Amino acid sequence: MLLDAPTAVHLRRLSPLDFLERSAAVYRERVAVVDGDARWTYPEMLERVYRFAHVLAALGVVKGDRVAVLCKNESTLLEAHFAVPAAGAILCALNIRLVKNEIEYIAGHCGATVVVYDAEFAPLVADLPTPVVRISVDDLAALIAHASSERFDNPASDEDETISINYTSGTTGQPKGVMYTHRGAYQNALAEIFHAGLRPESVYLWTLPMFHCNGWCFPWAVTAAGATHVCLPKVDPERIFALIEREGVTHFCGAPTVLIGLANHPGAKPFARPVSVTTAGAPPAPTTIAQMEALGAVITHVYGLTETYGPVTVCAWQPQWDTLEPAERARMKARQGVGMLTVGPDDVRVVRNEPAADGSLVDVPRDGATQGEIVMRGNNVMKGYYDDPAATARAFAGGYFHSGDIAVWHADGYLEIQDRAKDVIISGGENISTVQVEKAILEHAAVLECAVVAKPDDKWGEVPKAFVTLKPGASLGEDELIAHCRERLPGYKTPKAVEFGDLPKTSTGKIQKFVLREREWQDKGKRVN
Amino acid sequence: MLLDAPTAVHLRRLSPLDFLERSAAVYRERVAVVDGDARWTYPEMLERVYRFAHVLAALGVVKGDRVAVLCKNESTLLEAHFAVPAAGAILCALNIRLVKNEIEYIAGHCGATVVVYDAEFAPLVADLPTPVVRISVDDLAALIAHASSERFDNPASDEDETISINYTSGTTGQPKGVMYTHRGAYQNALAEIFHAGLRPESVYLWTLPMFHCNGWCFPWAVTAAGATHVCLPKVDPERIFALIEREGVTHFCGAPTVLIGLANHPGAKPFARPVSVTTAGAPPAPTTIAQMEALGAVITHVYGLTETYGPVTVCAWQPQWDTLEPAERARMKARQGVGMLTVGPDDVRVVRNEPAADGSLVDVPRDGATQGEIVMRGNNVMKGYYDDPAATARAFAGGYFHSGDIAVWHADGYLEIQDRAKDVIISGGENISTVQVEKAILEHAAVLECAVVAKPDDKWGEVPKAFVTLKPGASLGEDELIAHCRERLPGYKTPKAVEFGDLPKTSTGKIQKFVLREREWQDKGKRVN
Repeated sequence: MLLDAPTAVHLRRLSPLDFLERSAAVYRERVAVVDGDARWTYPEMLERVYRFAHVLAALGVVKGDRVAVLCKNESTLLEAHFAVPAAGAILCALNIRLVKNEIEYIAGHCGATVVVYDAEFAPLVADLPTPVVRISVDDLAALIAHASSERFDNPASDEDETISINYTSGTTGQPKGVMYTHRGAYQNALAEIFHAGLRPESVYLWTLPMFHCNGWCFPWAVTAAGATHVCLPKVDPERIFALIEREGVTHFCGAPTVLIGLANHPGAKPFARPVSVTTAGAPPAPTTIAQMEALGAVITHVYGLTETYGPVTVCAWQPQWDTLEPAERARMKARQGVGMLTVGPDDVRVVRNEPAADGSLVDVPRDGATQGEIVMRGNNVMKGYYDDPAATARAFAGGYFHSGDIAVWHADGYLEIQDRAKDVIISGGENISTVQVEKAILEHAAVLECAVVAKPDDKWGEVPKAFVTLKPGASLGEDELIAHCRERLPGYKTPKAVEFGDLPKTSTGKIQKFVLREREWQDKGKRVN
Repeated sequence: MLLDAPTAVHLRRLSPLDFLERSAAVYRERVAVVDGDARWTYPEMLERVYRFAHVLAALGVVKGDRVAVLCKNESTLLEAHFAVPAAGAILCALNIRLVKNEIEYIAGHCGATVVVYDAEFAPLVADLPTPVVRISVDDLAALIAHASSERFDNPASDEDETISINYTSGTTGQPKGVMYTHRGAYQNALAEIFHAGLRPESVYLWTLPMFHCNGWCFPWAVTAAGATHVCLPKVDPERIFALIEREGVTHFCGAPTVLIGLANHPGAKPFARPVSVTTAGAPPAPTTIAQMEALGAVITHVYGLTETYGPVTVCAWQPQWDTLEPAERARMKARQGVGMLTVGPDDVRVVRNEPAADGSLVDVPRDGATQGEIVMRGNNVMKGYYDDPAATARAFAGGYFHSGDIAVWHADGYLEIQDRAKDVIISGGENISTVQVEKAILEHAAVLECAVVAKPDDKWGEVPKAFVTLKPGASLGEDELIAHCRERLPGYKTPKAVEFGDLPKTSTGKIQKFVLREREWQDKGKRVN
């Protein structure tokens, strides 16, 4: 069924590793990576990747092994996107914002045999069970310096093999491992090149975490284009403005929160040249768009999930919108849009809750009013959840991946998200499982029951808000409960507000979260922000 | 082994048909095609393609059938690139410069069941055997106007199926049918988008014949980008300048001959905006480059063959060359370059004549001096020759397609053609088999023996020159022999010069063509022009 090792002259397995080898051969003098004061050309980057792969092999990594990396947005993580698959292994880039037990769960679930980590995150991986090889970025650097620079090319021979596993927050509490294939990563990278307009002379700033959906496949796309990666360990507006100026940045990506931080920074000043900004995670607000455009940004709004390699739709701009009023233009730009270049014509749809009698999915009318769920399929959709066939089967019901995002379909074919079916909060581009937050709250002895819902927020888009009923006679303050949660959860998952009292329930005693959500969102048109 | 009909949610067969459906969904108001006074939007183009496919089905075309099209560069041929595969059939675009017996051979060899033709070429197809359905463009248009506009989507379910067959001139006399696959066409189109810099707002002028390697896959690439096709039935410099101005053309392709014609046209004047020009078929001369750049062209030099979907390498421009002297810049630009974006690292090589003991191919040193043959493999290489496994096996010896082009490999990885191993002449971008020309000459009663070689030419790059020995006592003039050939051959294949006399031979009596070639090329550094 699948493209196996090509014995035919006319077939080569699609794998983004090829992009690095090509760019190293073609762009010999071009700077591939800027990381602090260090900079490497494409041939140097390739050599470092070979050395990295040799080190992994020396650490015992063999084909199909999982290698976890817990790093900020620095060259080690970028190079891991090539070195790990070159060694035949599967990359599992971990979110540095997670807490210890989350890291431990993921490392255990994917069965990582090697974990690479930044020194500052050492405590997070300190208690991984013994067979796991833990190696810090510094120790790795020392090994890389002495490793062979011989070509190391042992990747998947079948393009449908897994290249990476990216863990979602999971709506039922435990993260799920989303598997990307070599083929999918390759095709998505080609689409990103087109939509972001990447050229060999482009300079890409890493404002987007590479541990989010493999940086939306930009580690591969930017490399394919022969453009320059500028690493950025932390979203720091001052540093971003400085790097844009110093390095001549032409492109970056980020959630609207990042754009809000930039636009409202006291040191904000117009860019020396137009900068292409790709945003996702939430629809950008009109104010944000206007502010960023005033700085010289050209904003492209894309949409996707971890399960779709990051972006799968793009709000492709129409020239006839150029002359609209600013508010109307912003409204058009805030729509999630249409399938990207490599997405097939029926690969993204908005469908009714109820399938047809034969089980097939039924489109909602394209009236801009009827709500349905966004579903996707094709080369831009994950292979499945790692070691979780039941969850995969549920997610793929009817032959499409079910996003859990509720949208309308406009007459012009553009889709626009209205709500979420999944109980998830997206805050500053990070997904939060409300179930996980509720579990943490329930661990407090004074709490009887609780419900966590999204509350709209100007900066973060959404933040978690907790509604809590205390046990009879117990007493607990908002600050105290938030501190309790902060010990158990990453900062972004910690509730930003708490309301104590009775919870609305159905006659059978089920908590009516939607009532609480409606209360928080009553001034908003949509139920996402 | 190959990607079959995807039942998996995460796999979609790659096929350029998807590009048209996507652009019709996304770019509803954009002009897709300009053909004379007619212009159609993308939704209109798609509807015409559906109608066209319905007509083909009504004419009896079923999956796997071959449909030949003998048309100038007009919308019918462009739409055939989508309608024929949509109907499940294989497109065979015929070169309108061929003569009757060549057309008949090709139509017979590919077993076309339907032949679409421009009225002016009616005599060329008049004697095709009865089972072949012949339909003129005008009659087709009438049927299309009344056909169903329902979606017609019956393409290959396996991306490795053949989408088109393109006949080469063939060096041994008879044309060979080069098979392209859906996958290969899709990937090549994505690479063309990157290298030509096609954007949704681009306007592409069809100076390049679509019957050459399916217009280097630009029918699919331009459509994928959502750009505008401007048809051009004939390379007419005056009309080209007028269309560039009227339609705001941003891109076109063509052999250097086309550029020479433009640059030296009395009405030549600078373009209103930069125009991206992709050229191949021969290295562009420094004068041509300088003249075209003065008009505002940005020239990209690519290289390939029919067997490689058109371009497979690109002379990727390096910023460090910007400051070179014009002659040196032209020298850099005249090199054939490096593999395109979707070409793998070892997919294009320059190899020695003699393989290693184990049969594997051996690279020449990258010294810019040692000559070897250019070989290619991967997704940018044909599936094989139609109905000719022996020729396919010969062409694919050692696991690579053998181009027959002799090149050096420079230290920077760029290859540069020096000569041809195959006995072929490239004149104005058209390939000429010397064997075919020799056969035509030998049909003259006065001719005893002959040899045809390439002669360098400022306008056409190369033209055929005949060396002829007459039978004892016979007499024949140059003009008379050329007229004889013109009756049997297309104009471009007819010798432009004839020299009568004895032919140089080996001791065993074999004609030493290389001696004749050397004589013609003694003032040139390379043996191609």
